[in-house]
Amino acid sequence: KLVALVTSLHPADLAELVLELPEEERVALLDHLPTDVVADLFEYVEDDDLKELIRGVGVKDLPAVLEEVEDDVAADVIQQLEPEEQAETLAQMDRGEEVAELLQYGDESAGGIMSRGFVALNEGITVQQAIDYLRVLRPPADRAYYLYVVDDNRVLQGVVSIRDLLVSSPKTLLREITQRDVHAVTTDADQEEAARILQKYNLLAVPVVDAEGRLEGVMTADDLIDVLQEEATEDMYRMVGLDEAESVMAPVWRSVRRRVPWLLVNLATAFLAAFAVAPFEGTISRAATLAVFMPIIAGHAGNTGTQVVTLVVRGLAIGEVKLSDWWTVLRKELAFGLIHGAVAGIPTALLGLMLSFNPWLGAVVFFALVADVIIAGVLGAVIPLAIKRSGGDPAIAGAIWLTTFTDIIGFIILLGTGTLLIDRLS
Amino acid sequence: KLVALVTSLHPADLAELVLELPEEERVALLDHLPTDVVADLFEYVEDDDLKELIRGVGVKDLPAVLEEVEDDVAADVIQQLEPEEQAETLAQMDRGEEVAELLQYGDESAGGIMSRGFVALNEGITVQQAIDYLRVLRPPADRAYYLYVVDDNRVLQGVVSIRDLLVSSPKTLLREITQRDVHAVTTDADQEEAARILQKYNLLAVPVVDAEGRLEGVMTADDLIDVLQEEATEDMYRMVGLDEAESVMAPVWRSVRRRVPWLLVNLATAFLAAFAVAPFEGTISRAATLAVFMPIIAGHAGNTGTQVVTLVVRGLAIGEVKLSDWWTVLRKELAFGLIHGAVAGIPTALLGLMLSFNPWLGAVVFFALVADVIIAGVLGAVIPLAIKRSGGDPAIAGAIWLTTFTDIIGFIILLGTGTLLIDRLS
Ligand SMILES: [Mg+2]
Ligand SMILES: [Mg+2]
Ligand SMILES: [Mg+2]
Ligand SMILES: [Mg+2]
Ligand SMILES: [Mg+2]
Ligand SMILES: [Mg+2]
Ligand SMILES: [Mg+2]
Ligand SMILES: [Mg+2]
Ligand SMILES: [Mg+2]
Ligand SMILES: [Mg+2]
Ligand SMILES: [Mg+2]
Ligand SMILES: [Mg+2]
Ligand SMILES: [Mg+2]
Repeated sequence: KLVALVTSLHPADLAELVLELPEEERVALLDHLPTDVVADLFEYVEDDDLKELIRGVGVKDLPAVLEEVEDDVAADVIQQLEPEEQAETLAQMDRGEEVAELLQYGDESAGGIMSRGFVALNEGITVQQAIDYLRVLRPPADRAYYLYVVDDNRVLQGVVSIRDLLVSSPKTLLREITQRDVHAVTTDADQEEAARILQKYNLLAVPVVDAEGRLEGVMTADDLIDVLQEEATEDMYRMVGLDEAESVMAPVWRSVRRRVPWLLVNLATAFLAAFAVAPFEGTISRAATLAVFMPIIAGHAGNTGTQVVTLVVRGLAIGEVKLSDWWTVLRKELAFGLIHGAVAGIPTALLGLMLSFNPWLGAVVFFALVADVIIAGVLGAVIPLAIKRSGGDPAIAGAIWLTTFTDIIGFIILLGTGTLLIDRLS
Repeated sequence: KLVALVTSLHPADLAELVLELPEEERVALLDHLPTDVVADLFEYVEDDDLKELIRGVGVKDLPAVLEEVEDDVAADVIQQLEPEEQAETLAQMDRGEEVAELLQYGDESAGGIMSRGFVALNEGITVQQAIDYLRVLRPPADRAYYLYVVDDNRVLQGVVSIRDLLVSSPKTLLREITQRDVHAVTTDADQEEAARILQKYNLLAVPVVDAEGRLEGVMTADDLIDVLQEEATEDMYRMVGLDEAESVMAPVWRSVRRRVPWLLVNLATAFLAAFAVAPFEGTISRAATLAVFMPIIAGHAGNTGTQVVTLVVRGLAIGEVKLSDWWTVLRKELAFGLIHGAVAGIPTALLGLMLSFNPWLGAVVFFALVADVIIAGVLGAVIPLAIKRSGGDPAIAGAIWLTTFTDIIGFIILLGTGTLLIDRLS
């Protein structure tokens, strides 16, 4: 009775439930479920959760289950296994070779996401022949949305929809009703680029071709939506130095292993900033009000720059900013820094005056704030663009380097100017 | 000749090109393009760019263009106009009433995103009748992917696909081949919830029903993908206090208007922190090394907490964290803070020892760091959860309140303990 209840759930909901069970219960439940129900679960879990589902099923029962999932999902599952387990599992599957072919492509490339479960029709057949073929093939509904039209060399020519077949006269050749402006990517294209094409052209699938234009596979919207979500999460996490697999729900020891190393690097950069302050201890003892402004100036410049880093990283990700825009961005942030620095400098100078009754202190903090804020904006733009330019991920801990620089530069400008003018300040 | 060249582009590419032109050239080009080509552009521009495209077309030519776009896009366009312009434009459109109906729904609700351009079939007709109906209706391919099945009261019963029609025998009743586990949302559902359903169940469209379950519209994947992207951008931007419409490519004055007000609020919170420091100026002049540790401790706690804010905000957005998880999250971050605080406290204490040759100073900075780091982690979890609990957006400037608190708390603990032990420190 439990099995009947459980199998009446949508596989996406059942997957959620299964993942929330403790390991033994998960194993027991999965053991009682029919193979096709278990197979469906794999289609709906996120990549992060595959490992737990695999352990629940057990590696030795995996081949039978994978026989019933789509080839791209089977490839994703097999990728989670140890090398020996991979070979063994593939050997025991009827479609092992088919799936193995998909494993050759990079994990985050179009080839690594595509499925070979598409419907391709030769441009030379008639509409009636195509309909008859579909009646025999009975492709799953979600594969039959776009029917790809190829030539005799399997080179992609375009698409027709089932609806086009339905409303065209039976003797029409597919060639005559093919829509030719398809947006295909090559197998080595980045998954993010493919997802952006889907979004830009409002598609439901993106075909994947080899270097000669032959149709190799199709990436479907459901998988590319996951790519967009994962890439957004990755960027958010990387900007603050988090591992993309981290979760606030993870066990504490796993979080310690994932977060503490980066936090210690971050602490080390703060030490660098401290070394920048140490030589000025004499100045600070004579004009302690300067210490009050250290966190204000460094912190405000850090926030200003973090906004720019965020805008540039996200702008690059959604295609709004291009590397070639660097000069536009730089000039703009320079102008912004001047205006904003002047505006924010005034209340800061007034606070300095208020705390010290000394106009020289007001002047020093005004100057330090304006300078640090301008530098922060420029660095906020330059750091991610430079990382992208050199082939790295612009999101990678963008904020850590930025705030290290804005701290050090802010302290040196504030305390350096203070030292020069120490006789006026103390 | 130019017009021929330009109209051969995909509308998504043409839209990009048109938006990059200076205003006069844009107006001139749009004036020369056929109405249906201009209409296509509206289907592919982002909401942010609609205003510029509208100005390019001119409000008086708008009704003719909107006659040819999908109803949901027409509603989005009309929403950008002034109230009088809205009424006028709708009055001049044949489908004015149809579009006006969509305008009643909230901008970010399912009703505000849905289109009425769906295909609904009565459950009582046969497969052959459905095929004949589709042949006459000739729905655009992207509307015909799911065919919705309704009863005599228009209450949604389920879906069939064209492929189901093609492979079923002509006399079968639709009722017999209807797939009944559809995931519908009501017109007032949040757009983000609808997008999450699309993603979770790997759908290509989500039907929208009224309170009685009657089919009112359909949200398509292309629009829900845009929702996911926009919501991710919005969260990233809000966390650092940016307006969701901001762009690093915007003109500098617009950026000043958008960024500076929040930055000034932020500066004001830094002043609060400064007021926390001011009473301790005496302590700082006697033990200036403490000033060196102010930015280290406050900065490190700020970074630690920002990671947690990011994890919780994104976790809530992708459905990984729920409000009911609050205790799990809190307990976990408390444990994490203890472990991480101890680990990070040791090098900090050693640095204190190195700079002052005074073990008391090492003890003071160790204690202040551990305490501030634990508080930061707990606040990083509590702030977004509390904002969400009270109905607000958890992303809203989460980091600003957090770093204000961690600054103030860090300074008070460090300088307060320092004041208590001042005789040992100086
Ligand atoms: Mg893969
Ligand atoms: Mg990538
Ligand atoms: Mg789109
Ligand atoms: Mg797939
Ligand atoms: Mg998938
Ligand atoms: Mg990745
Ligand atoms: Mg990325
Ligand atoms: Mg709308
Ligand atoms: Mg999905
Ligand atoms: Mg639409
Ligand atoms: Mg839209
Ligand atoms: Mg919004
Ligand atoms: Mg949101």
